[in-house]
Amino acid sequence: MARILFDELAERAKQAPESGIVEILNHARLREGLIPLWVGEGDLPTPDFIRQAGMQALDNGETFYTYQRGIPELRQALARYHSKHFSKTFEPEEFLVTGSGMQSIQLALQAIAGNGDEIIYFTPAWPNFAAATEIAGAKPVPVELDFGANGWCLDLEKLPTALTPKTKAIFVNTPSNPTGWTADVATLQSIFDFAKANDLWIIADEIYTHFHFSGGRAPSFMDIMQPDDKILFVNSFSKNWAMTGWRIGWIKTHPSLAPMFENLIQYSTSGVAQFMQKGALAALDHGDDFIKMQVDRARTARDLICDRLLKTGRVKLSPPQGAFYLFFEVDGITDTRAAAMQIVDETGVGLAPGTAFGPGGASGFRLCFNRKISDIEEAGDRLVKWLSK
Amino acid sequence: MARILFDELAERAKQAPESGIVEILNHARLREGLIPLWVGEGDLPTPDFIRQAGMQALDNGETFYTYQRGIPELRQALARYHSKHFSKTFEPEEFLVTGSGMQSIQLALQAIAGNGDEIIYFTPAWPNFAAATEIAGAKPVPVELDFGANGWCLDLEKLPTALTPKTKAIFVNTPSNPTGWTADVATLQSIFDFAKANDLWIIADEIYTHFHFSGGRAPSFMDIMQPDDKILFVNSFSKNWAMTGWRIGWIKTHPSLAPMFENLIQYSTSGVAQFMQKGALAALDHGDDFIKMQVDRARTARDLICDRLLKTGRVKLSPPQGAFYLFFEVDGITDTRAAAMQIVDETGVGLAPGTAFGPGGASGFRLCFNRKISDIEEAGDRLVKWLSK
Repeated sequence: MARILFDELAERAKQAPESGIVEILNHARLREGLIPLWVGEGDLPTPDFIRQAGMQALDNGETFYTYQRGIPELRQALARYHSKHFSKTFEPEEFLVTGSGMQSIQLALQAIAGNGDEIIYFTPAWPNFAAATEIAGAKPVPVELDFGANGWCLDLEKLPTALTPKTKAIFVNTPSNPTGWTADVATLQSIFDFAKANDLWIIADEIYTHFHFSGGRAPSFMDIMQPDDKILFVNSFSKNWAMTGWRIGWIKTHPSLAPMFENLIQYSTSGVAQFMQKGALAALDHGDDFIKMQVDRARTARDLICDRLLKTGRVKLSPPQGAFYLFFEVDGITDTRAAAMQIVDETGVGLAPGTAFGPGGASGFRLCFNRKISDIEEAGDRLVKWLSK
Repeated sequence: MARILFDELAERAKQAPESGIVEILNHARLREGLIPLWVGEGDLPTPDFIRQAGMQALDNGETFYTYQRGIPELRQALARYHSKHFSKTFEPEEFLVTGSGMQSIQLALQAIAGNGDEIIYFTPAWPNFAAATEIAGAKPVPVELDFGANGWCLDLEKLPTALTPKTKAIFVNTPSNPTGWTADVATLQSIFDFAKANDLWIIADEIYTHFHFSGGRAPSFMDIMQPDDKILFVNSFSKNWAMTGWRIGWIKTHPSLAPMFENLIQYSTSGVAQFMQKGALAALDHGDDFIKMQVDRARTARDLICDRLLKTGRVKLSPPQGAFYLFFEVDGITDTRAAAMQIVDETGVGLAPGTAFGPGGASGFRLCFNRKISDIEEAGDRLVKWLSK
């Protein structure tokens, strides 16, 4: 009977894949002694001052419907935050609050991609973008990054080969999850020029911009665009302020599109809790020190784990320039899904198998190093021991 | 330039309508002395014990990613709640937590309706279902309820006339927003038989089930279905427990479909904050008295406002059997959108114009009476005075 009901579903629902990250997570989520480096979050709870702001708003009874596009104070704070970090002046009318970076992506897809349209993205990639594109009725078209002597890089000559008359957009995640690939300004300019020449949208996912290990934020499309260019920025409070579990993000768009996005929000989740928005407001206004602490810690953790793994002589990697993941291969391991299961079972270190990250990723593992140094040391020791067996 | 960017959007995004409720809300949201009866929420903040549960979880640092389908405790509580109110035994595996009743609808649409499919719904109707259907690429097909001597009713003979080879589902909202129409068991059985005979899904929106003024909960598809029937229940914490601003709801489905819904959640909002789920857990386990208080108050408010408006001799209405809205017409008023603007400007009473509620609704007004009696009395006095001009 169960089988029959499933058959009655729409094709896009039947085909929605299980995340390869969630699969291994469910395999060993509650294991004792686990060091969970498989998902994209750190070990710290949301900073106290942010939680207090949310609690205060709950205590105040801020539990009614509110503005679908986000409360004015938070949209003003988003304008201040961007003006501070991106050397331009931004207005509240450019921002809408969403129920996560993931929802920002879903809304961006609904806004620009119709049935049968194609969207280019770079792989190995966080799996959710491609899956959401398919659920939206569009087709994700992968362009593989290359791994060479200087780490991951984008061969710009591949872009025209992925272009078809149906191409509507390019999704650019930089710094990248899972590879840490971080586009320099020249690369961004080339992608931008290509998009412009072919009348494509860019969906820019720069949520890791502060996790840029050579200092300052990463290069951004903000640095080269004009206000009326076809770029939508999807963003999240999750990583900068350890708010992964909150489910709150934002979209930055041309103000003329804000009413349309507000309608899409109305008919999907109808906004974000005001008490959550008060927490997010505190994060934007008082969260810079927390970001700096996290980035400094991640840099140390990155160096440490790269160093240990390289010493085994079995690991191929390049220290990532940004984000907080190491994507690495191990000589002699081809089935990374089975290996990741074996590694968590035998060492208690949770890694995400590269099979979860699309074309070009299958032979790698993703390790999240946004975690206290002692955990990263311990995980390194266990992995080195396992690799040396 | 602005205009040009809008032209670059996908058709479904360009066509997403502004809610006719939000339009008037934005017209006079912050007016002094306003009695806001236009949106579907009461005047009470979320009960303290629910807010405290959320605050406690925030204080505990429950701010990490959690189960995409909802935390086990909450899904167990949903099973208990349903077992208590629907005289059957339910299992946690039948429930998924969502980011609002609205998101439950979006997920149900993604699950069962592909591009070009049709879904029958009854009007006058809350506008969001039809809009979400169109954004999902499907077509909402209205069947108008009739207003007669016994109030609103469904002429079952209209169902076959709305059926086409593309029909995939019937959306049934009972008790209904905005009319208060409440299907009796025989009507539910007829809809159910019609759906079954034509291999259609039913999306059941019974969020107002406890707001049933003749006592007990309203009749439900739960009363007549078998576990493997093609029915999806979309629900929300918003109304029962004054949690409109929280954005949390649930889906009840056959357990075999839960993994598919979990994937759709993964690729849309990636779950609901654990600290919100702890609030919802408290609501389910300890919120019955609050529901009873609200329902008793709404019954008194309903009788009071109907009585006053009828005495003007200008109003056509039937006291609603369920939900917490009065949908009424006024002799001599045809442009309800303009009139609602005028009424809020001149009396400070916010009503939703019937134009927001689709075919059959244009000549009415929706008034939400889930509010303290003194406000309803005052609103009644102002409206009577305005109508008597």
